[in-house]
Amino acid sequence: MEETVLLVETVKDLLESGRRERLAQILEEAHPEDIARTLRELPVEQQTIVFRLLPPEQAGAALHEVDDQTLLELVRALDELELSGILERMPADNAAQVVDELSEEQAEKVLDLMEEEKSEEVQELLEYGEKTAGRIMSPEFVAVHEEMTVAQVLDHVRKAASAEHAFYLYVVDDHDHLVGVVPLRRLITADPATPIRLIRHEDIVSVTPETDQEEVARMVAKYNLVAVPVVDGDRRLLGTVTVDDVIDVIQQEATEDIQRFGGVAGDETVLDPPQRAFPKRLVWLLINLATAILAASVIGLFESSIQTLAVLAVFMPIVASMGGIGTTQTATVVVRGIALGDMTFSVLRRVLQKELILGLTTGAANGVVMALIAYLWKGQILLSLILGVALTLNMMVAAVVGTLVPLVLKVFRMDPAIASSVIITTFTDVFGFFSFLGLATLLIKFLL
Amino acid sequence: MEETVLLVETVKDLLESGRRERLAQILEEAHPEDIARTLRELPVEQQTIVFRLLPPEQAGAALHEVDDQTLLELVRALDELELSGILERMPADNAAQVVDELSEEQAEKVLDLMEEEKSEEVQELLEYGEKTAGRIMSPEFVAVHEEMTVAQVLDHVRKAASAEHAFYLYVVDDHDHLVGVVPLRRLITADPATPIRLIRHEDIVSVTPETDQEEVARMVAKYNLVAVPVVDGDRRLLGTVTVDDVIDVIQQEATEDIQRFGGVAGDETVLDPPQRAFPKRLVWLLINLATAILAASVIGLFESSIQTLAVLAVFMPIVASMGGIGTTQTATVVVRGIALGDMTFSVLRRVLQKELILGLTTGAANGVVMALIAYLWKGQILLSLILGVALTLNMMVAAVVGTLVPLVLKVFRMDPAIASSVIITTFTDVFGFFSFLGLATLLIKFLL
Repeated sequence: MEETVLLVETVKDLLESGRRERLAQILEEAHPEDIARTLRELPVEQQTIVFRLLPPEQAGAALHEVDDQTLLELVRALDELELSGILERMPADNAAQVVDELSEEQAEKVLDLMEEEKSEEVQELLEYGEKTAGRIMSPEFVAVHEEMTVAQVLDHVRKAASAEHAFYLYVVDDHDHLVGVVPLRRLITADPATPIRLIRHEDIVSVTPETDQEEVARMVAKYNLVAVPVVDGDRRLLGTVTVDDVIDVIQQEATEDIQRFGGVAGDETVLDPPQRAFPKRLVWLLINLATAILAASVIGLFESSIQTLAVLAVFMPIVASMGGIGTTQTATVVVRGIALGDMTFSVLRRVLQKELILGLTTGAANGVVMALIAYLWKGQILLSLILGVALTLNMMVAAVVGTLVPLVLKVFRMDPAIASSVIITTFTDVFGFFSFLGLATLLIKFLL
Repeated sequence: MEETVLLVETVKDLLESGRRERLAQILEEAHPEDIARTLRELPVEQQTIVFRLLPPEQAGAALHEVDDQTLLELVRALDELELSGILERMPADNAAQVVDELSEEQAEKVLDLMEEEKSEEVQELLEYGEKTAGRIMSPEFVAVHEEMTVAQVLDHVRKAASAEHAFYLYVVDDHDHLVGVVPLRRLITADPATPIRLIRHEDIVSVTPETDQEEVARMVAKYNLVAVPVVDGDRRLLGTVTVDDVIDVIQQEATEDIQRFGGVAGDETVLDPPQRAFPKRLVWLLINLATAILAASVIGLFESSIQTLAVLAVFMPIVASMGGIGTTQTATVVVRGIALGDMTFSVLRRVLQKELILGLTTGAANGVVMALIAYLWKGQILLSLILGVALTLNMMVAAVVGTLVPLVLKVFRMDPAIASSVIITTFTDVFGFFSFLGLATLLIKFLL
């Protein structure tokens, strides 16, 4: 991160002293990712000044790297002509991601002002659903006809501008159907007279534009690919998804999983303005309020026991809290297991068995420790035993809930990660209060 | 995942009907990742049978893909001679990862039995610290001398076996110092008579063997690389880290973050045996037990108020629960922000401001809703107001705790992700009980 910090400081200094030329010079040599992070840390007016100093190529690359919030601020400050000039110089897939963030009106104007060819490419990409291979594929690739020789292909590659970033050549037939793939390096080792179809790999891993981006990432990871071709229903080649985009997808999906599990939107960043984060956070808080009231109403059932024996109120949150952590531990492993493809119904029985054993053993261990402490603290042996038993039982409920709730969500085609603390701990709160206060109420005459 | 399910079923059927030859044939054509997942779902004896049917190359690739647990079971069942034969055929970096899982004694025997050259390569990699670039780098790469021409380089590449998986050529001087990099495709477009030093990029991103693997992943993601060279202190080329290994690192680090936040070890998988998960889970549960007792002792301070007014016990968990979710939301965003490099001290003031605004607004919204519900439920206006105020205050504490605790951990060089629910909710539990019961106790004469 050091280069970034350095750049931020330098840019701030040069802005202050008004040395625009030197600033432009430094920005030209900086890495787009560093520029993006620098922009993020500047006030809006300075963002625009700096951005306008960038050469168009740099501006496009930086625009691709900035977070959504900074992007929104920048495009609001720029006019459509400036924006279209920058977008034209961006790869179509990156440009599409920027256009996607614009208001409908602004997007239309910008697309009108762009070169027709690039504008059409961008519009085609935008027709695919969000988070699909179609959205992140690049329409630039090197395709060669299966009847060409290695020498002809080499000649073609030399002339193709898009070869600049290519690692594979795609071999197509008369009707543009994908029929093979050749790593570029294979051209170097092959005899120039060889027909390309003799050295192509026919066993091609490909996806369709509708394939979910997470599935694309899983395939690239599984088969150790650097790019994966995207083909339509007739196996016509439409584009390629490259590994750098796949890395972005993996990062993004991990963020989504972590955040959703914590009751946050899935794409919130630390610097989002509060009004943006507010509605989504509020939803989960209100859901939690409802579940907390449910748990409170369980306590309400035993209000007279508590009136008689206030010490029950002291111990009851411990049972709930332990169940909450226990079920979070289980659900964390299960949710991540689902994301990585490890957790399937075929192993459900084994996982449930493992979690129940863990629930019982960790529950019993903590139950014994807690019963001892409670006895030393309050000196009531029966109450201590009830506490230990309720705690252990709640840990077993925690194991079952933490394993099953994410799987059930998956079956209903919801993101298992929303089985956040909020949802699963409702079960352990309710059962925890019910088991402890219930047992105590049943045995209350021996407790007084 | 469909191919995997299919393979598992087929393998089980063929094992049952004893058709070993057909099974061997099918395994030979299967993808190592699918074989690895199939192994995982078989009982130990069958794992060994299937594994022994694999050709050595396949066996090595599958061994690299299996989870730690299956790996341990397999290497326990195989003898050292078998194992060394398989390891010899694996890339040195993958072999090192397997050897690293063996017992010291077994590792020594296996390394003795391996070809000397491969054995030495593996031992060298194992000398680097865990989770460093040195551990995941491949010692196979294509290096050419800076004085060579493109034609000479092409000739060299044709002969180099390791070019098979190379995307870049590395240019070195007389003393093996890295002085440039050339994408393989550049060789195709260059005139054969050109000296390689004229087309090399001199601005090379590189890492040292000691670089943390997470930092390597961040660089590959930032600069959109397919491989990054590893050099020693004198810039001598030692190996390369390829993007497929980087993807593994990213997945692994995401799993670690998610799990640690949920109070789990960081590398637990759904099928780990309970005795393996037990100690680490128990540690967090015991820590939580201690913090829950701390919170309970706060309630204990107000036992007589609860005795007088049992309804306090009904409402108090709501204040704690809301604070718990609030602080989890904040900490989730901050912890992920730290991992992605977005959250630094330079933006702390802005983040704290955002979180406090969110804490105040979501707290007030939930506080009002809760106060209304409490009033409708119990009809006590002052109690309802106390509940609303305590809830709002606790949400502001939640904002501060969720922002600062992960950062403080980072300052003390601990993983911010261990600011798990367990740690941060202690603050909100304690403050939640204290503020609600404290206010109620102060005003108790008006509540009766």
